[in-house]
Amino acid sequence: MKKILYGSILYSATPNEVKEFKNSYLVLRDDLIVGIYERASDIPSEFNDAILLDYRDKLIIPGFVDLHLHAPQFQITGFQMDLELLDWLNYYVFPEERKYSNLSYADKSYDSFVASLKNSLSCYFSIFGSIHKDSDLLLMDKLEESGLVSFVGKVNMDRNSPDYLTENTNTSMNETISFFEKCRGKYKNTYPIVTPRFIPSCSDALMKMLGEYAMANELPIQSHLDENPNEVSWVKELLPKSKSYTEAYKSFSCLNERTIMAHCVWNNDEELRLIKEAKAFIAHCPTSNSNLSSGIAPIRKYLDLGLNVGLGSDIAAGHTLDMLEIMDNSIEMSKMYWRYVDNKYKPISFNEAFYLATVGGGSYFGSVGRLEPGYEASILVLDDSLLQEGYYLDTLIERLERISYTKKYKLLCKLVRGKKII
Amino acid sequence: MKKILYGSILYSATPNEVKEFKNSYLVLRDDLIVGIYERASDIPSEFNDAILLDYRDKLIIPGFVDLHLHAPQFQITGFQMDLELLDWLNYYVFPEERKYSNLSYADKSYDSFVASLKNSLSCYFSIFGSIHKDSDLLLMDKLEESGLVSFVGKVNMDRNSPDYLTENTNTSMNETISFFEKCRGKYKNTYPIVTPRFIPSCSDALMKMLGEYAMANELPIQSHLDENPNEVSWVKELLPKSKSYTEAYKSFSCLNERTIMAHCVWNNDEELRLIKEAKAFIAHCPTSNSNLSSGIAPIRKYLDLGLNVGLGSDIAAGHTLDMLEIMDNSIEMSKMYWRYVDNKYKPISFNEAFYLATVGGGSYFGSVGRLEPGYEASILVLDDSLLQEGYYLDTLIERLERISYTKKYKLLCKLVRGKKII
Repeated sequence: MKKILYGSILYSATPNEVKEFKNSYLVLRDDLIVGIYERASDIPSEFNDAILLDYRDKLIIPGFVDLHLHAPQFQITGFQMDLELLDWLNYYVFPEERKYSNLSYADKSYDSFVASLKNSLSCYFSIFGSIHKDSDLLLMDKLEESGLVSFVGKVNMDRNSPDYLTENTNTSMNETISFFEKCRGKYKNTYPIVTPRFIPSCSDALMKMLGEYAMANELPIQSHLDENPNEVSWVKELLPKSKSYTEAYKSFSCLNERTIMAHCVWNNDEELRLIKEAKAFIAHCPTSNSNLSSGIAPIRKYLDLGLNVGLGSDIAAGHTLDMLEIMDNSIEMSKMYWRYVDNKYKPISFNEAFYLATVGGGSYFGSVGRLEPGYEASILVLDDSLLQEGYYLDTLIERLERISYTKKYKLLCKLVRGKKII
Repeated sequence: MKKILYGSILYSATPNEVKEFKNSYLVLRDDLIVGIYERASDIPSEFNDAILLDYRDKLIIPGFVDLHLHAPQFQITGFQMDLELLDWLNYYVFPEERKYSNLSYADKSYDSFVASLKNSLSCYFSIFGSIHKDSDLLLMDKLEESGLVSFVGKVNMDRNSPDYLTENTNTSMNETISFFEKCRGKYKNTYPIVTPRFIPSCSDALMKMLGEYAMANELPIQSHLDENPNEVSWVKELLPKSKSYTEAYKSFSCLNERTIMAHCVWNNDEELRLIKEAKAFIAHCPTSNSNLSSGIAPIRKYLDLGLNVGLGSDIAAGHTLDMLEIMDNSIEMSKMYWRYVDNKYKPISFNEAFYLATVGGGSYFGSVGRLEPGYEASILVLDDSLLQEGYYLDTLIERLERISYTKKYKLLCKLVRGKKII
């Protein structure tokens, strides 16, 4: 199917370069981008019969990528954020995740969760489910139905957790294998991912089995790393022989180019070297890291090092799915890092945040996040005309910045892999 | 006029105490609160003929107080926040404020500004205008018409500013006197306030004249204090004999119980002692202070010291008028202060932020910010029923917290001094 979107197109090509095309033509074929043409006469003639969607003067940007969030925490979004990570999990999160052993609770809750993802600005997600395989599969059915693209993990936990969320080690592994088998060939846009919660809640034996299973089958993996100082100390106690938290994941075959590690606030330089060497992805979650008083990830340093970094909402430690708000928060936190932690690392720019939220996380999904030929046709159209009437801005990136901070805009259209879902 | 609002009422009585009344009756006479009654039969019989507004299950809270913002910066809200204070003023703000020498620009811009204030959650404002008296008066006309309550200042600047924003010292003083005279008897809810921009842009002679004029006439004063380290150093150079920035304001008779000082991020303990002694008000502006990389005001310390503190949006260094978002930001920043600056000062709670945004700033306006007998009847009704259907919360303060973070609510009603403006 051929489609042409007409409007003011922008995307972040690199952290330092934004591409802007005022009132131009974005040409799509099926689920891919063909190209951007400034004049109608430049469009190849084979697209003469394409559907033209006229969004003159509106902003056309890549759909965002949310690299880290927890589906079974969705209902407790936006309150109870007065504790640090480990207490917060015990007091608020685990009792809520327990409820997903009940399929009818999961059914109702995941309906509203998926509806919220659908209405959000993000097109791609990497999601933690709960330990409950059937609820996780139900979530995947709903996600597939939505048209969104996602990885979903059945969470593994076999130690240091409440009884009601502690699996037997072998059962945890077998349920994971069964989870992957049930997904095989079932979905087009929804993929299973190996998901040990984090080292404190997974025994060495379980970590080893999961890592080997993932390696043997070239499976994606997601987990948490170096989020909170108390968690980091705990991991040191749990694994006294490991040189570091990151090294431990590596030793369990859980650190490679198919890995997403959420947070990475407290990694030391040697750990960053391991992450870079592994080409693993970092999900930077600034809203979460401030809400749980975890700290500030040195995002400028990560960009300087050329690490793979994207942004994550981390629902429900993060309070919002709104990727524009998360981008703004990543900038604000980088300013505080510069001010209070290390003034060698200057704050990130709005375009750098835009890069993280599109290309940065998008690379995990393949050719995602740029509006260039061969990239996936996942696209948002945003209407800021009321703001433009009040105070006209010439550059498209400033218009995007303004709507991100003021939230005065309408989402007119959301395409995911070429399919219109809003 | 007698009115009764029925619904779930809450307000912050002290930083440590929130008062909650599920589905109760808030009784108003004219512009004041009579009381809260849990049962209809407890309401005094003289209110039998009162208008009853039924907001069953909805949240009824005090209207918010925005203690610091700049009207002539409204059009540049939400972008160009990549510089620190002094450069930001020179590159972005002053060229915009210059435009307010043109009354027709001011007319159009202030229409949208006042409309945004009206639609916001705040009922009380303390506003910087520009140096242009006629534009400031035009703004006051529009504010009075809106039904909102506000202080508005004609800004004074006679040094270290671009030519186009530098007044002659005597002219600046005379225009201020004329501004106050033109306001006399003209408005019911709109008050003039003495507004030296800050010490760097006001000569000693001007500061002295303004301070003496304010003191002689018992006028309110607003200015900026200790926002950014470069600004603080500059003030030290400009006033080498002053012990501190705060001491300098005091020496100019500009520090008393009628004073609002915006920011106060970098004050030392002796300065805080002076502020406490003077009973001056601090406008804490966390969104602004992160956007301009200024730093984090030690808000826990200010609460511990018993200082008068409210919250300010500081448009346009702050990017939003949304006081719920500013409350959340004050909490997030207090968490980062605890983590990185001084772990003696624990993060503030949601109720403490609620206190700051209501009673904290409200005290500057008199009996404002609590829903207690004799307090002004400035009230919001918020609808969070969609969230309650999804995941029921029992405590009213958690419901308020949830809508503040998720922004999933509707503003159903806004009363200011008893008058319904939404």
